[in-house]
Amino acid sequence: MAKPLILINLKTYKEGMGSRAHAIATAAQLVASESGVTVGIAPSYIDLHPLAKHFMVPVYAQHVDGAAPGAHTGQITAEALRVAGASGSLVNHSERRLTLADIEASVRALQAQKLGSVVCTNNDITSAAAAALAPEYVAIEPPELIGSGVSVSKANPEIIRKSVAAVHAVNTSVKVLTGAGIQSGECVKIALDLGTDGVLLASSVVKAEDPKTVLRDLASKI
Amino acid sequence: MAKPLILINLKTYKEGMGSRAHAIATAAQLVASESGVTVGIAPSYIDLHPLAKHFMVPVYAQHVDGAAPGAHTGQITAEALRVAGASGSLVNHSERRLTLADIEASVRALQAQKLGSVVCTNNDITSAAAAALAPEYVAIEPPELIGSGVSVSKANPEIIRKSVAAVHAVNTSVKVLTGAGIQSGECVKIALDLGTDGVLLASSVVKAEDPKTVLRDLASKI
Amino acid sequence: MAKPLILINLKTYKEGMGSRAHAIATAAQLVASESGVTVGIAPSYIDLHPLAKHFMVPVYAQHVDGAAPGAHTGQITAEALRVAGASGSLVNHSERRLTLADIEASVRALQAQKLGSVVCTNNDITSAAAAALAPEYVAIEPPELIGSGVSVSKANPEIIRKSVAAVHAVNTSVKVLTGAGIQSGECVKIALDLGTDGVLLASSVVKAEDPKTVLRDLASKI
Amino acid sequence: MAKPLILINLKTYKEGMGSRAHAIATAAQLVASESGVTVGIAPSYIDLHPLAKHFMVPVYAQHVDGAAPGAHTGQITAEALRVAGASGSLVNHSERRLTLADIEASVRALQAQKLGSVVCTNNDITSAAAAALAPEYVAIEPPELIGSGVSVSKANPEIIRKSVAAVHAVNTSVKVLTGAGIQSGECVKIALDLGTDGVLLASSVVKAEDPKTVLRDLASKI
Repeated sequence: MAKPLILINLKTYKEGMGSRAHAIATAAQLVASESGVTVGIAPSYIDLHPLAKHFMVPVYAQHVDGAAPGAHTGQITAEALRVAGASGSLVNHSERRLTLADIEASVRALQAQKLGSVVCTNNDITSAAAAALAPEYVAIEPPELIGSGVSVSKANPEIIRKSVAAVHAVNTSVKVLTGAGIQSGECVKIALDLGTDGVLLASSVVKAEDPKTVLRDLASKI
Repeated sequence: MAKPLILINLKTYKEGMGSRAHAIATAAQLVASESGVTVGIAPSYIDLHPLAKHFMVPVYAQHVDGAAPGAHTGQITAEALRVAGASGSLVNHSERRLTLADIEASVRALQAQKLGSVVCTNNDITSAAAAALAPEYVAIEPPELIGSGVSVSKANPEIIRKSVAAVHAVNTSVKVLTGAGIQSGECVKIALDLGTDGVLLASSVVKAEDPKTVLRDLASKI
Repeated sequence: MAKPLILINLKTYKEGMGSRAHAIATAAQLVASESGVTVGIAPSYIDLHPLAKHFMVPVYAQHVDGAAPGAHTGQITAEALRVAGASGSLVNHSERRLTLADIEASVRALQAQKLGSVVCTNNDITSAAAAALAPEYVAIEPPELIGSGVSVSKANPEIIRKSVAAVHAVNTSVKVLTGAGIQSGECVKIALDLGTDGVLLASSVVKAEDPKTVLRDLASKI
Repeated sequence: MAKPLILINLKTYKEGMGSRAHAIATAAQLVASESGVTVGIAPSYIDLHPLAKHFMVPVYAQHVDGAAPGAHTGQITAEALRVAGASGSLVNHSERRLTLADIEASVRALQAQKLGSVVCTNNDITSAAAAALAPEYVAIEPPELIGSGVSVSKANPEIIRKSVAAVHAVNTSVKVLTGAGIQSGECVKIALDLGTDGVLLASSVVKAEDPKTVLRDLASKI
């Protein structure tokens, strides 16, 4: 199995902007080097270029449009992400849903720039559909766990297991992230035990007083 | 193989409303009985109930929302379609794109009402993704053929063949329609030879002076 | 002042479909004739034509697209509404938001068919913007009142007063509806006292065991 | 009258990214200082911060979301724009249409950060509606002129004049930009003669071999 990934979505949280984004990236880099776990961050578009330049951790965009450069006001191209030094992008996050045609175009556009893609999904069936697009990762976010503060282990571990099976039934080389219900190292361990290759999480790191301590805990049982 | 399907999308064409919709349904019923081919129609929501009541041909909605009945102004539920006598619905037509989560919810909602689903897609990869949702049909509409007046046989038969293969690699029980590039019985024959189970078409029937003649030609080489 | 309007949005409530829609229309017609108040209904697209044919009350669609008839799968044209016998349409309901360009196109399309338009808005500023489009009505739905069960009189009557003023500052001939916070005849009286020309409401009538009794109460203090 | 504004939308053009964006900003700054005209640029989100820091010209985002900082993956907040040093943002560009509620929220969010707003519209009626939101500018983009290469003076000067009148009938303090049909200094002169306060343009500067020469021409007749 590839090295597990802990991917932190900074969203547009006030606690994830500007100097705070740098502090989280610093913590991510430190914990990655201490633990050997890959810790990535997905900051706002505006912080993406400086963070990608100043840190060794993978930096993902939170969204990308599938269109080639051109007359597309207000969009983000995969080409612009590559030039900015990004490692890839989230695609179809639950807070930024896309049409199926656009998800596919975004994954293709990222691949054409040799960038990774993390396609977010809401259940095992849409996870299987996403797997057919051959992204780097599918991140399953069960709606009942999003922002709930409930651990995936307590709520509904079965949906994670079913999603992993559904993804691999379509494409065995697509990796899976547990995209909600992660608060602690124990949750991360359960996520990996359920067959996923890492976790996607947000507020528990971004809003933490000390992100380093939270990240150390998250990486502690891998 | 199941009986081939010729499905006519009336869109919001002036020539597909009201009494014209009845004339097309009459022609569809006649040609179906003459030829043994299944000929379905997808009229506007407003014409759906009377057409489903007065004709024997399958009547599909042009779109359905995945939500259960409730506080959803301006939406169409699968339950309402069933009550109206519909056989199913188009989902994610190129003129009415949906998010992946909504496509899945729509297919599920139709299944829960024992209604058919025709999920429209734009290439072989999104066709594979749609197949993971286990709809009744995937209708592949290559963008370069939509409304082009060019026959699928001349433009790009390969994309149809690849889409059929991609769909069946994910789910062998999903049927495929050729969703663009159909003008004649010869085109229908090619569509079936390419491995699809029927065709989805619109203007060449709806805008025809005599839809019956066009439909007879479409069914003539099956 | 024109005769006040009580407009009932049936949404996709189970209790507002098929025979239930007919029962509500029957109650609307009865209470309208008893009270002299105009009572309109906004049923699903599928029930629109039979209700418009069988009842004397104004029947509104819940949504309309601005495009002319043509290649627009899954859309509803103003022309189709007119042919079905509708009096007009809701536009931009909080559950079916549109772009500004589409709101304007919808109002224009309705006007071209000599149909009424009820443009829904969320505050006094968007109400003023909607007034610039010269619809028949602007229906202000303060987000904090939608589906709250709280009376507009208790929650925030000021937003209604400000919206009426804002609408009339832009266009004095546009009428205003209070679009949320209406449960009783007392609420309707307050809505009219605040300067609006009627009310738009949904669940308190549609989900009532006996819609006639609720409607009689709503019309009782006008 | 305020100093005229020439605002250049870099879209996602390949010729408007990275070092090319810096070259255009350099030209904008030079021509602004030579001519006394205000020349602003609207780069991609990724280039926004470095351009705002290194150049004196106003830098606008191409889009902003109205939501406050929080759980909004893939969005851009007005707060993030202010922190990055932006002067304001385009809102509702024809390539990035928003709902009326979102346009209003975006203008409010920009105002709360003391940032300017340029709300794009498609005709005189939607321009009046936009004026009700009290943005800094309304930029009218007649659809038939967008990307047409046709000068506004030859195509339809009347729509510009009517839009200016419609905007000022609602709110006299809102300024207006001619948002399409600008290729030369002569076009800019006509735009100002028609009563607008400047121009919004894109490809004729961004795709020019030498943007400085084009900008000098654009500013030459003011």
